[in-house]
Amino acid sequence: MKKFYIAKSRRLRGTPYSSRIENQGLTAYTVYNHMLLPAGFEGIEKEYFHLKENVQVWDVAGERQVQIVGKDSAKLIQLMTSRNLSKAKVGRCYYAPIIDEQGKMINDPIILKLDENKWWISLADSDVGLYAKGIASGLNLKADVSEPDINILAVQGPKSFKLMEKVLGKKITELKFFGFDYFDFKGNKFFIARSGWSKQGGYEIYVENRKAGLNLYDELFSVGKEFNLKPGCPNLIERIESGLLSYGNDFDNGDNPYECGFDQYIDTKSDINYLGKKALIKILKEGIKRKLMGVTIDLDKIEMTEELPIQSGKNLIGYLRSAVYSPQFKKVVGIAMINKEYWDKKTPFELEINGKKSKGSVCNLPIV
Amino acid sequence: MKKFYIAKSRRLRGTPYSSRIENQGLTAYTVYNHMLLPAGFEGIEKEYFHLKENVQVWDVAGERQVQIVGKDSAKLIQLMTSRNLSKAKVGRCYYAPIIDEQGKMINDPIILKLDENKWWISLADSDVGLYAKGIASGLNLKADVSEPDINILAVQGPKSFKLMEKVLGKKITELKFFGFDYFDFKGNKFFIARSGWSKQGGYEIYVENRKAGLNLYDELFSVGKEFNLKPGCPNLIERIESGLLSYGNDFDNGDNPYECGFDQYIDTKSDINYLGKKALIKILKEGIKRKLMGVTIDLDKIEMTEELPIQSGKNLIGYLRSAVYSPQFKKVVGIAMINKEYWDKKTPFELEINGKKSKGSVCNLPIV
Repeated sequence: MKKFYIAKSRRLRGTPYSSRIENQGLTAYTVYNHMLLPAGFEGIEKEYFHLKENVQVWDVAGERQVQIVGKDSAKLIQLMTSRNLSKAKVGRCYYAPIIDEQGKMINDPIILKLDENKWWISLADSDVGLYAKGIASGLNLKADVSEPDINILAVQGPKSFKLMEKVLGKKITELKFFGFDYFDFKGNKFFIARSGWSKQGGYEIYVENRKAGLNLYDELFSVGKEFNLKPGCPNLIERIESGLLSYGNDFDNGDNPYECGFDQYIDTKSDINYLGKKALIKILKEGIKRKLMGVTIDLDKIEMTEELPIQSGKNLIGYLRSAVYSPQFKKVVGIAMINKEYWDKKTPFELEINGKKSKGSVCNLPIV
Repeated sequence: MKKFYIAKSRRLRGTPYSSRIENQGLTAYTVYNHMLLPAGFEGIEKEYFHLKENVQVWDVAGERQVQIVGKDSAKLIQLMTSRNLSKAKVGRCYYAPIIDEQGKMINDPIILKLDENKWWISLADSDVGLYAKGIASGLNLKADVSEPDINILAVQGPKSFKLMEKVLGKKITELKFFGFDYFDFKGNKFFIARSGWSKQGGYEIYVENRKAGLNLYDELFSVGKEFNLKPGCPNLIERIESGLLSYGNDFDNGDNPYECGFDQYIDTKSDINYLGKKALIKILKEGIKRKLMGVTIDLDKIEMTEELPIQSGKNLIGYLRSAVYSPQFKKVVGIAMINKEYWDKKTPFELEINGKKSKGSVCNLPIV
């Protein structure tokens, strides 16, 4: 595939860590929430194996925060998501679909409750802050919506626990999955959650002070030598195999949360109030006709820039939305929106790319 | 400067024209409204001189449209902008600041009135569709908000008029600046506006049918040979010299429309109703303390990824937000947010980049 450079500008915001990662072997960027997100160092397969066995530090400042503060903040948060947050606890993270009035997906962030009247929405790639501002203005809510200067560092991989313990002390190992707390490093407080965009374990450090964050970054790399720490980034192979969905890739504003398999994050029964509730009740009643599933394809490479139709003879099985060659499965693995009649069948399918047909089959997520 | 590749994925949507421009010498992309936007071919200076003397076709599909349809569509449109659109005419384009309730900028699109109850917002780089959905839901408006599959081709440069006349007929030359109409090409209707993101003259073709659009694309390049047509893209040198502002580069949600020099698009006196009106009345009364201006700097290159402070000795003059070397002025030209006490002075300033100080001065926009 031909490669193209990224043209830098202030509009594609740099992060506090950009100059560091660029000196640590970065080769490629993507753009996420109007910000540069690192997308490659030594090569995706090397990085995949390294992530699954060691520890990586990722500059994921592109996971911007929408901060909502004020006495109507909980009401505004609930209006945007189908997940019941009425019993949400301070100190916990909640994966939650953000939907519009038609019940279609807008984002799938982690929502963090910092206080009864203070929340962060840790975003996938869309301007949810504008959605929140629109609703708040329309309903005249007492809720201040802003994007604070928070720049997340993710520490991911099986050795992340030992590394973080060595840098931040024993207390960090007591943090439960999707819990968060403040931790001290050289006199600065860091908001840290046990979370991250891989299934290999680890933490996300919500850096609120740029200078202190760079000191912590350098300390992680200094201490990290003994754990074979490397700079990294969300890994396409790992995320597809793990079934970690990506807004804009696997689903978008054309899809509803049932089609994305988010059933456990949809409350249609209690009396909570959110936009799109009526639409979701109707969808639930009628049943969905397609959903996201895994696929494997007999190919040794693929590049996606748009969804690709998947056929079985003349019948349309669905659309491939993300895909990459997996060195583990020795074929291409992907995530596809599959029509209902093919959910349970092990029907082999054809995928035609540039006139060349390949064989494949549908499977569940994660791909095992 | 080190260069980095862009990592492609479905999330950074390709356009109908991507495969064509990639075979026509494209070297770099940027990302605009979650879509690939071409950012370089033969080199920015060569492209600058070519654009000012000839004609270029640009793939600006990244200028996505928010379509608003319904009996409350005009009300919803007006709620988002400080420009008085109560007398807007069908068939006309309106440059209009989109602002939030605090009177801060969200976008600076072209708003097109297609019908009494049908509007397009031709976007700069932010998800205004989500803002519109939020307001519509909050106020329970009868307005359907969507992103139709419209992929703009811009034809820009002084020879664009002759080229378009040859391809589409005499009628196209009668289109007034910021007017639009439908034109026929080989049995397909094309929505064409006399507009574009340069000051060199030209058109924007709102392609609603992908296949017909590719036929028109190919015809433009076939007929274009005699006009020295080349593929191109918005040119940073031309836009800065012309004073064409860019959301995300020159201004963002931290700035108000007075600071951006949008005074003529702000109505605080009539009884129209828009979000942020109160805030703007207050800002107008108090007066602004900074505004966007041009600058020239004695440098032969620059790369921007964040705003840079501009000093005069120990005094802060403002912040540089966009800049590029201009082969015409033989120095760097830029757009900066300048503090009030320096608006009228020809005070030379210092800009420090990587520890190296350069001399410069403030000027008006456009830079002449």
